[in-house]
Amino acid sequence: MQAEIIAIGDEILIGQTIDTNSSFIAAQLNAEGILVWQKKVVADTEEAIRRALDEVHPDTRYVFMTGGLGPTKDDITKKTLLEYFGGEMVFDEAIYEHIKELFKSFQREPKEVHRQQAYIPSSSTAILNERGTAAGMRFERNNCFYFSTPGVPYETEHLVGDKIIPWMMETQMEGKLYHKTLITQGRGESELAEILKDWEEGLSESLKLAYLPSPGLVRLRLSGAAQTKSESKALVEEGIAIMRSKLGDLVFGEDANSLEEIVGKSLAQRNLSLATAESCTGGYISHLLTSIAGSSKYFLGGVVAYSNALKINLLKVNPKSIEEHGAVSEKVAIEMAEGVRQCTGSDFGLATTGVAGPEGGSPEKPVGTVWIAVAGPQGSKAKCYHFGNHRQRNIRRSTLMALDRLRKEVQKIDC
Amino acid sequence: MQAEIIAIGDEILIGQTIDTNSSFIAAQLNAEGILVWQKKVVADTEEAIRRALDEVHPDTRYVFMTGGLGPTKDDITKKTLLEYFGGEMVFDEAIYEHIKELFKSFQREPKEVHRQQAYIPSSSTAILNERGTAAGMRFERNNCFYFSTPGVPYETEHLVGDKIIPWMMETQMEGKLYHKTLITQGRGESELAEILKDWEEGLSESLKLAYLPSPGLVRLRLSGAAQTKSESKALVEEGIAIMRSKLGDLVFGEDANSLEEIVGKSLAQRNLSLATAESCTGGYISHLLTSIAGSSKYFLGGVVAYSNALKINLLKVNPKSIEEHGAVSEKVAIEMAEGVRQCTGSDFGLATTGVAGPEGGSPEKPVGTVWIAVAGPQGSKAKCYHFGNHRQRNIRRSTLMALDRLRKEVQKIDC
Repeated sequence: MQAEIIAIGDEILIGQTIDTNSSFIAAQLNAEGILVWQKKVVADTEEAIRRALDEVHPDTRYVFMTGGLGPTKDDITKKTLLEYFGGEMVFDEAIYEHIKELFKSFQREPKEVHRQQAYIPSSSTAILNERGTAAGMRFERNNCFYFSTPGVPYETEHLVGDKIIPWMMETQMEGKLYHKTLITQGRGESELAEILKDWEEGLSESLKLAYLPSPGLVRLRLSGAAQTKSESKALVEEGIAIMRSKLGDLVFGEDANSLEEIVGKSLAQRNLSLATAESCTGGYISHLLTSIAGSSKYFLGGVVAYSNALKINLLKVNPKSIEEHGAVSEKVAIEMAEGVRQCTGSDFGLATTGVAGPEGGSPEKPVGTVWIAVAGPQGSKAKCYHFGNHRQRNIRRSTLMALDRLRKEVQKIDC
Repeated sequence: MQAEIIAIGDEILIGQTIDTNSSFIAAQLNAEGILVWQKKVVADTEEAIRRALDEVHPDTRYVFMTGGLGPTKDDITKKTLLEYFGGEMVFDEAIYEHIKELFKSFQREPKEVHRQQAYIPSSSTAILNERGTAAGMRFERNNCFYFSTPGVPYETEHLVGDKIIPWMMETQMEGKLYHKTLITQGRGESELAEILKDWEEGLSESLKLAYLPSPGLVRLRLSGAAQTKSESKALVEEGIAIMRSKLGDLVFGEDANSLEEIVGKSLAQRNLSLATAESCTGGYISHLLTSIAGSSKYFLGGVVAYSNALKINLLKVNPKSIEEHGAVSEKVAIEMAEGVRQCTGSDFGLATTGVAGPEGGSPEKPVGTVWIAVAGPQGSKAKCYHFGNHRQRNIRRSTLMALDRLRKEVQKIDC
């Protein structure tokens, strides 16, 4: 019950496009206990695609191919699959109807190149792509299924997540692996390892703990590989409970949870609202918050106060505070958080002010110095952090730290 | 002169982490004309790493391995490389000094696990990692170089970009490929293909055009493969000039340019300032703008007016306009852009208001309806768009369209 992924596209091999499709497919398969034992990236030539098909391992039961489907000349997967699996191109009326509908929703007309996309090899089963014009395809040979989806992630996510995996679950059997991930904020990989050390050393061979750091977050993935999926699951769930008790409120969520989602839920459950006053994070906090559907229920908005004038005019920060303490200071952070809370009438105000870099640092306040303030029903608090000297990383780490500070304050209030 | 990439990590195989390192390395090599002919992802076990090393093609000259270096127990690349290439672990004083310095900058003390990172196989040359504790390593065997870097992208980008590639360029020879990419906004893949059709059909075999669509943008990559790098370059540059003349102002940049960078440069060159008033884009415009170092020179900040109250109180939108036309309307978009321009004193005001979804749509204003307004020295303009029904995609497409609308208005003004 193993799977292989073949990503097609020069743009991946030359590093211009990041292969998010493979990750998405692997995650989906993994969640169902199906092991991806290899990923490959090949060029978008007939020869390379054919060679990759020839090299599929005899024991592989599922091959996922992404990329190389679409209206322009550089798309040749469909042609190669037709030659490989045989048959002829047939016009699929249902797919063309869908293409016409799709264009109607964009208030445009399909052209001949789009009509061509309704031709599908007779050796395949077409999979309707509700998010685009290029249909997915399923082929079968020697007890192995081959799925082909377009390179556009938004379309492949739909085809794999909504169509192919449910079809597999319905018609095929289940795997044995089980994973669960805890997501932590505020401590580095090695500090977490110290906390878990004794427990980790006593783990059985069926359990494996992995540390997955990214800027501002460390995910801890516990994987179980027992005789059955339910046995693996039981082992993992038991381990996760122990890890949670050891890590306390360093853990903010599980698996695909994001901090912005957890913060949003915590606010919504308590019927509380939030507004932001961002300087060094430049709108990234509000971007993450508003990426969650339904966030308008608790997020009122905020001010990106990049210049001092905006801090003073819109957030009513006292010019004297900036003069005496500097814009990157406890006093200004607190005034920003309280200012945005007041001018929007929100329950919570969240503020950041810092030196994102690469310029603007001083010996006293080096690049990476960030003040984060939370103003709420229980009063106002600010804290200073040092996040190093990389701009993008500073913005991300400040944002995650700010959201986590807010999470802890909100969760102190009874639901 | 070919390269292979081996990414190590269960987290990539199960799709939890996206393999950005491979993309980064491939892009860097490609820019120097070195072809990456294969990428592989393998599990983080000694067996899988060893097998991948055994399977390196005899003609491969450079092998880039990322992942599996770091202070915690799941990191085993260094141990496997030691066994594979022989020698013994030796303590590297310079690396330990660097580790101590690094901890000092975080105002913390290194622990024993961090000191362990200063041990390096005697068969390798250590590569100092200025962004972290895990050093890079270079091994050599049978005229092939093997580089090992940590899985953390921020560290691998530094080691490969600042250390390994410059070393290769200095000590090795150059490749033959040449690529250039034009980046366009505002038209789909097939419409661009129509414009370029006749020219593209007459292309010689040494040139290849690829369409690389992503939400809101289409990149057009022209690749040349002639006898020498300078020949390839001449062919590509000539082709790019023709494409530019055919596509006109649909093209906003080249290669790694981003729209936010081009907009920022256009403003800075003219000594003009900008403020934003974002509703449906929720701060994403200001996040992209402030991700550019030095953006505080032209970006004053803005208001994320998610609620109507903020539109009225901070941006001085007329409540009657919202009542009569709705928050998603030409009138409100213009009042937001003019309001933020007025309250911040900026030269340009850029506003978005729309239905990002999945809720909030109506038959008259379905999910995906977005008004974008630009207010500037030449007056105010708004336009309505329909971006379909996917929330994240709507936010991204609205943001890119808004930045591109602004770009065109700014570029009308003489430098």
